[in-house]
Amino acid sequence: MKIAIDGMGGDNAPKAIVEGVNEALKDFPNIEIQLYGKKEELEKYAIQHERLEIIHCEEVITGEDDPVRSVRRKKDSSMARMLEAVSEGIADACISAGNTGAYMSGGLFKVGRIEGVLRPALATTLPTVDGKGFLMLDLGANAEAKPENIVQYAIMGNIYAKKVRGIENPRVGLLNIGTEENKGNELTKAVFEQLQQSDLNFIGNVEARDLLDGVCDVVVTDGFTGNMVLKTIEGTASALMKMIKEVFMTSGKTKLGAMLVKNELKGLKGKLDYSEHGGALLFGLQAPVVKAHGSSDRRAIYNTIRQASQMVEFDVVNVMKQAILESQKEQ
Amino acid sequence: MKIAIDGMGGDNAPKAIVEGVNEALKDFPNIEIQLYGKKEELEKYAIQHERLEIIHCEEVITGEDDPVRSVRRKKDSSMARMLEAVSEGIADACISAGNTGAYMSGGLFKVGRIEGVLRPALATTLPTVDGKGFLMLDLGANAEAKPENIVQYAIMGNIYAKKVRGIENPRVGLLNIGTEENKGNELTKAVFEQLQQSDLNFIGNVEARDLLDGVCDVVVTDGFTGNMVLKTIEGTASALMKMIKEVFMTSGKTKLGAMLVKNELKGLKGKLDYSEHGGALLFGLQAPVVKAHGSSDRRAIYNTIRQASQMVEFDVVNVMKQAILESQKEQ
Repeated sequence: MKIAIDGMGGDNAPKAIVEGVNEALKDFPNIEIQLYGKKEELEKYAIQHERLEIIHCEEVITGEDDPVRSVRRKKDSSMARMLEAVSEGIADACISAGNTGAYMSGGLFKVGRIEGVLRPALATTLPTVDGKGFLMLDLGANAEAKPENIVQYAIMGNIYAKKVRGIENPRVGLLNIGTEENKGNELTKAVFEQLQQSDLNFIGNVEARDLLDGVCDVVVTDGFTGNMVLKTIEGTASALMKMIKEVFMTSGKTKLGAMLVKNELKGLKGKLDYSEHGGALLFGLQAPVVKAHGSSDRRAIYNTIRQASQMVEFDVVNVMKQAILESQKEQ
Repeated sequence: MKIAIDGMGGDNAPKAIVEGVNEALKDFPNIEIQLYGKKEELEKYAIQHERLEIIHCEEVITGEDDPVRSVRRKKDSSMARMLEAVSEGIADACISAGNTGAYMSGGLFKVGRIEGVLRPALATTLPTVDGKGFLMLDLGANAEAKPENIVQYAIMGNIYAKKVRGIENPRVGLLNIGTEENKGNELTKAVFEQLQQSDLNFIGNVEARDLLDGVCDVVVTDGFTGNMVLKTIEGTASALMKMIKEVFMTSGKTKLGAMLVKNELKGLKGKLDYSEHGGALLFGLQAPVVKAHGSSDRRAIYNTIRQASQMVEFDVVNVMKQAILESQKEQ
């Protein structure tokens, strides 16, 4: 399979991107990589490899570029060219760690939606205490959502959890402000009803406080709420870590204590680091469009390449297409 | 001033409630307390005090009682009688650690709204890394909100931050999924515009990931989002603490390390414990209606009594009333 990668996107590009690519080439014999970007910069870090092709692009889309227009305007940017390759069938999937907004609107514009999908959704696997993780969507592809959008998120998330995460009968939960059936706002009440009538293993409403305890495998919500919850988890974890560091610096005694638990705490940081599970996914497009975190290092890029390859291998897009079609027949 | 307290509400009632009352009576010479509940149970723990009156009630509203109807149905419950006392002017403020839903609808029904307030809002002070904390509302009094509701939340939150928290010119922020002006959904966009035109010290959109870093003093949002963010903070902190405990138990070395930092980590837990700042407040009612956390201990009840007394002392309800009136004149 052929995976197109934006060599210029993200805080640590191009070095971390290329290093992740080098490693993936070694470990995954079935992947051919097309690396888009400034040739001379990419060649500084790239290994010589028969399954690696570097495609020169003059332009780069940065974090400052306008999300909606930049892929159309910067036609010779690494991101636009990579998306183009997917839309033309030259590549089977694509990965970028660059401007999220530009990538999402570019993906929608260039790669296009699966027939029947009303709105694409941004999904990612978040960590749980038991290490298994859960998939959450939408994380902000759409700030507004209708009930039928969220039902489709559930259908798509369910397939990803089955195919890529290997969960036999994923437990699907609706994020809400209480577990009782009649809880929430008009939107969640309507979604609840529709999910209950679906073929999914719908376990009902789940509360934000139980997410990291692994209350279910797929959590669906509107993009506003999903984005809010994602950022709250990030912010709370980071604030707590700051506070713990301060605690460790209180005295000679605590400094000694900190030394003794240092390595194990680092392991915990790895557990919380959701790039271990790969990047975020734009579900509902005609090919896997995978977004690596902006701060991705070599390892995160490597994991994201593996994730994209699994989506191709398990034909996730076609299975989603089928499921969406069937859900529409039922109505 | 006279404060009415529900002696039977909360996980640790009546013991923790009465013990908190005993302590408050010693420290706050200007407070008279009316303690509602089963007399013989309350008297087990209560000290004899000239400023303490125990009022016997036959019934108790439990966590299982219907939120909407229970205050009307259980007329001789400690919660209903306490709210009654406030509505009749026999008490200046009230406190319960019992059924939140019942207390909120009971408060609205018995105590009533301030003239001009469209919807009451639930507010609490949450901890920040620097220890100063911030006020957030609405935490779920209303699952749906209109822009003008949230503007009123801001007006009321601003007054509380000024009067009770002693912040001269509180920075008011709108919780949103990005800091740029045009971010968010229809609701946040409309609120943004209205807050910008207000007299408040509106600093714009704030993101959930920056809340615990103390990005502003008053954060407003709709009740669905506020409840979601509150529970996400709680859940993330609790999951992290569990993970850290596991890390500490890895080996003899880490156990020793844990012993050395144990006391200081407990201090951190206190810092995160928002009951230090008192309970949650139902803003927009004609008297201070204060909700202590269900798991409140003696100390939390004590803090909540102090908080309620400050609301009475600084005449917060009347100042809010005035501010709401003025905001309506401006329109």
